[in-house]
Amino acid sequence: MALRRVLGLGAALGRRSCCSQHPLPPDFVEALRAVVGGPNVSTAMAVREQHGHDESMHACAPPDAVVWPQAVGQVQELAALCHRCHVPMVPFGTGTGLEGGVNAVQGGVCFDLSRMDAITELSLEDFSVAVEPGVTRKALNSYLRGTGLWFPVDPGADASLCGMAATGASGTNAVRYGTMRPNVLNLRVVLPDGRLFHTAGPGRQPRKRAAGYDLTSLFVGSEGTLGFLTQATLRLHPLPEATAATIATFPSVRAAVDCTVQVLQAAVPVARIEFLDEVMVGACGRFSGLELPEAPLLLLELHGSRHSLAEQQRQAEEIVRLNGGSGVAWAEEPEERGRLWDMRHSAWYAALALRPGCQGYSTDVCVPISRLPDVVVETKRDLQDSSLTGPMVGHVGDGNFHCILVFNRQDPAEAQRIHAFTQRLGRRALAAGGTCTGEHGVGLGKRALLLEELGPEGLDTLRCIKAALDPHNLMNPGKVL
Amino acid sequence: MALRRVLGLGAALGRRSCCSQHPLPPDFVEALRAVVGGPNVSTAMAVREQHGHDESMHACAPPDAVVWPQAVGQVQELAALCHRCHVPMVPFGTGTGLEGGVNAVQGGVCFDLSRMDAITELSLEDFSVAVEPGVTRKALNSYLRGTGLWFPVDPGADASLCGMAATGASGTNAVRYGTMRPNVLNLRVVLPDGRLFHTAGPGRQPRKRAAGYDLTSLFVGSEGTLGFLTQATLRLHPLPEATAATIATFPSVRAAVDCTVQVLQAAVPVARIEFLDEVMVGACGRFSGLELPEAPLLLLELHGSRHSLAEQQRQAEEIVRLNGGSGVAWAEEPEERGRLWDMRHSAWYAALALRPGCQGYSTDVCVPISRLPDVVVETKRDLQDSSLTGPMVGHVGDGNFHCILVFNRQDPAEAQRIHAFTQRLGRRALAAGGTCTGEHGVGLGKRALLLEELGPEGLDTLRCIKAALDPHNLMNPGKVL
Repeated sequence: MALRRVLGLGAALGRRSCCSQHPLPPDFVEALRAVVGGPNVSTAMAVREQHGHDESMHACAPPDAVVWPQAVGQVQELAALCHRCHVPMVPFGTGTGLEGGVNAVQGGVCFDLSRMDAITELSLEDFSVAVEPGVTRKALNSYLRGTGLWFPVDPGADASLCGMAATGASGTNAVRYGTMRPNVLNLRVVLPDGRLFHTAGPGRQPRKRAAGYDLTSLFVGSEGTLGFLTQATLRLHPLPEATAATIATFPSVRAAVDCTVQVLQAAVPVARIEFLDEVMVGACGRFSGLELPEAPLLLLELHGSRHSLAEQQRQAEEIVRLNGGSGVAWAEEPEERGRLWDMRHSAWYAALALRPGCQGYSTDVCVPISRLPDVVVETKRDLQDSSLTGPMVGHVGDGNFHCILVFNRQDPAEAQRIHAFTQRLGRRALAAGGTCTGEHGVGLGKRALLLEELGPEGLDTLRCIKAALDPHNLMNPGKVL
Repeated sequence: MALRRVLGLGAALGRRSCCSQHPLPPDFVEALRAVVGGPNVSTAMAVREQHGHDESMHACAPPDAVVWPQAVGQVQELAALCHRCHVPMVPFGTGTGLEGGVNAVQGGVCFDLSRMDAITELSLEDFSVAVEPGVTRKALNSYLRGTGLWFPVDPGADASLCGMAATGASGTNAVRYGTMRPNVLNLRVVLPDGRLFHTAGPGRQPRKRAAGYDLTSLFVGSEGTLGFLTQATLRLHPLPEATAATIATFPSVRAAVDCTVQVLQAAVPVARIEFLDEVMVGACGRFSGLELPEAPLLLLELHGSRHSLAEQQRQAEEIVRLNGGSGVAWAEEPEERGRLWDMRHSAWYAALALRPGCQGYSTDVCVPISRLPDVVVETKRDLQDSSLTGPMVGHVGDGNFHCILVFNRQDPAEAQRIHAFTQRLGRRALAAGGTCTGEHGVGLGKRALLLEELGPEGLDTLRCIKAALDPHNLMNPGKVL
C-alpha cells in the first residue's frame, strides 16, 4: 500500500533536483520498507554516516537512507522506485574504495549489497564462477580452496569483487594476470530504471566474444554511475605449482626501474614486481620488525612449475645483479613468503606510523614504464620541496605507483600543499603520457584531472554515454563526471 | 568553392533518408574532391564494386563514392561534410572481413583508409607502437624485425590493424596473448560529426587505466558503427626465445578437446592450440601434400625460453598421451613450423577445393570449453543430416570454432539449408552459454542472433549507446544493430 502511494506520487516528485541535496519524499522510506522489509532499511544517523565514506580522506557525505536488498529482484524494485521519484542511488560494497566512490554527495539511498553473497556457477573446466556483490576476494579464494583454481586480482583490501569490477581495480598481480577488466566475463546489471540485463547476455561465459559493443568493459570501471553490478562472472586461473618471492635492494630508483623493464623484456613471466622507495622501506622495516637496508627495493614473486621456477629465478637474479641490485634468499614456503608480503601489505599503516595521529591519502598515477624513473625522481624532489611525507609503493611492472601522503588535516596550510602536490603529480603523469589513476578510479578527487587527461571531446563522449544510460543522473551522481 | 556550395546545401539536404539508398546530393562529389584532391575520389563502378564487399558471401553493396584520405584532418573534414549532408559513411581497411562489415548497404561514401599508413611512437621500453589504418599486421611485424618485439594477434588474413581493432579480431594466438581488446592501448577516433578524440586521451599509453569509462574497449569491436579508428596504439610482446610446434592425432573429437582442457588446467602456457576435424584434416592433407591420418587433430605451438620449452613439451606430450593422442616430432626450426602452419592456414582454400567452383562461408561460434565436445559432435551430426560440406577448424583453447561451409550459391535449396544450419548452430552455441560470434563480428549476418544473445534489454543498451554517439545513424548503418 505504502509503495503504491509513493509510486503514485512519482510524477509530482519528478522535479526533485538531482544537483542538490533534498529530503526524501514523504512516505518514501515506508515504500523502501515495503520492498525489502523493515529491518533492511535504516535512517539512523550512525548507519548513514558509516555508509557515507570509504577509506579515503574525502569528507563523509551520508545518504538519506540505507537499504539492504537480499535479491536482485529487490534491487530492481528499489531502483524503479528511486527512479520514479528521482532519488539518487549509491551502490555500496565493502566501503574500501580510495576515491570517495560511495560518498553520497547528493544524498539519496545507499544500496548496501553485502547481504547478496551467493557464489554460483563454478565450472572447473571453464575456469569460471559467478559471484554476487557480497562476495569478497578472500571469501571467493576460500571457497575455491582445493579446486586447483584461484582468482588472482589483489588490490590489498578484502574488497567486494563486484566493487572491484565497478572500480576497475587491480593491484599486485596485474602484471601477470591482468586487471579486473580481462578477468570479468559477464555482469548482471540493474539499470537506473530497474531493468535488468547481462552485459554478455544471460547465462553466458565464453572466453571471447565479438558480438556487439563490449558492455562488460564499459561497466567495469564505471564506478556505480551507470547501474548496479549485482553479479559478476569471473575468469579463474590455475594455481601455480610453485611460488617463490624475494627482495632485491638497489643503489637508485632508476636502477630498480631499469631492472623491472629488463625483466619484462626478457619475458620472465613475473607474477608480482613491487617497488618501495627508501622512505617506505624504512617505514615498513620498522613497522614489521624486518631488518632492511634503507634503499630502493623490489619485491618479486614468481609463479610456475617447479622446473620453470628455477629458470625464472636464475634469469631474475642475473638481471637484478646486472642492475647493481643485491638480493636475499628466495622464500618458497608459504610462511616465509607471507612475511615478505605482510611487510608490503603493511605499507599503508607503516606510512601512517611515520606521523601518528595524522591522515593518509594515496595518489595513483600510472605512466609508461620508460618514463617511470624520471617521474618518480621528480616526484620525490617535489615531496621534499613541499615539505610533505609521502613514501612510495608501486606496481612497477605496470608503471603504477602510489605516494602515501601522511598529513595533518587540522593544518590548512599542509592540506593546501597536499592538494597542490597531487595536482602537480597528476599533471606530471599526464605530461609523461600516463593517467591520473591506474586503479583507484576518478571518484570525487580526480574529476578535474580527467578533463585534462581525455580532453573536452573525450569527456563529451563519456558524458554522452552517461546521459544515454542514466538520463536523470541518478546513479552515484557527482562521481567521475 | 564547390565545398562551400555543398555545405551551404546541408540544411536542405538534411532530410536525406538514412534507411534507404538515395543518390548523393548534387555537387557532393565535387565537395569530396575539394577536401582530398581529384585523384583521391572515385565513382567508377569497378572501384565502387571492389569496395562494396569483403571476403564473405554477403551480396556486394557498392558505396556511391570511394575516397582515399591521406591524413586524419581530411577524415575529419570528409566526415563533417557527410554528417552535414546526412550521407552514410563506411570505413574500409583491407576488405578482409568475414561478415559484410564494409558492404555499403545504404550507399554513401566508403572511406578507404589504406593510404594512411604511418607507423609512429615505437617504444621498445614500453612495448608499444602507434599505427594508422593502412598498416597491416604483417607490415607491422616486418617493421619490428630486429627489435625483439612483435604483435602476436593473428587472424590469418593480412588485415589492417585498425580494422582488426574495429572487428575485435583474434585468431590462433589469442589463447596466450589475448584478442585485440587487451592489446589496444589507445585509439584516435574521428566521430561521425568530424570531431576527433583519443579513447585514452591524446598521446597516452599507460599499461592500465581506471580513468572514466573504458572508451578503448567500447570502440574495439564497434565494427565502424561509432566512428573511424584512424590510429591504434598497440601493446607489443617480447619475441619468444624459442618456439616449437607439433601435431597430435586423436581417436575422437572429445579426446582432442579433453586434451585441450587439461593442457589449460595444467597451466602449460600454450601459445596456439588449434583443432581440425577429420574432414578438414583430409582436405588440408590433400591440399598441402602432407600425409596425415584422417582423424581429429590438434596443432600445438609453444613459446618460451629454450629451457622452459623442454618442460612445456614434456607436459604437453604427457597430456596428449593420456588422452589417447599420438604425436609426431616437434618442429623447432622456422621452416618445419612454417610447413605445419601453412597447412593450417590453407584450411579455407583446402575446404573450397572439396567442391571446386563453390562459395565458402565461415561460421564463428564460441562456447565454454566444457560444452565444446557436445556442441562439436552435435554440429557434425547436423552437417550430415543437412547434407552440407563444412569441415571444422577451431581456436579450441578459447572454445571458438569455425565450420567452413562450401556450397553452390546457384542452388536455392542448398542456400536455404545453409541459412537454416547457421541459425541452428548459433542457437546451439547460445543454449550452451556461448556467443554467435567469437571473432568475426556481427556485421550483416548475425543481427537476429545478437538479439537472442543479449536479450531485448541488452540490445536496447547497445542501441542507446549507438544513438548517443551517432544520432543520425550515419556510421556504417545497417551493421550490428
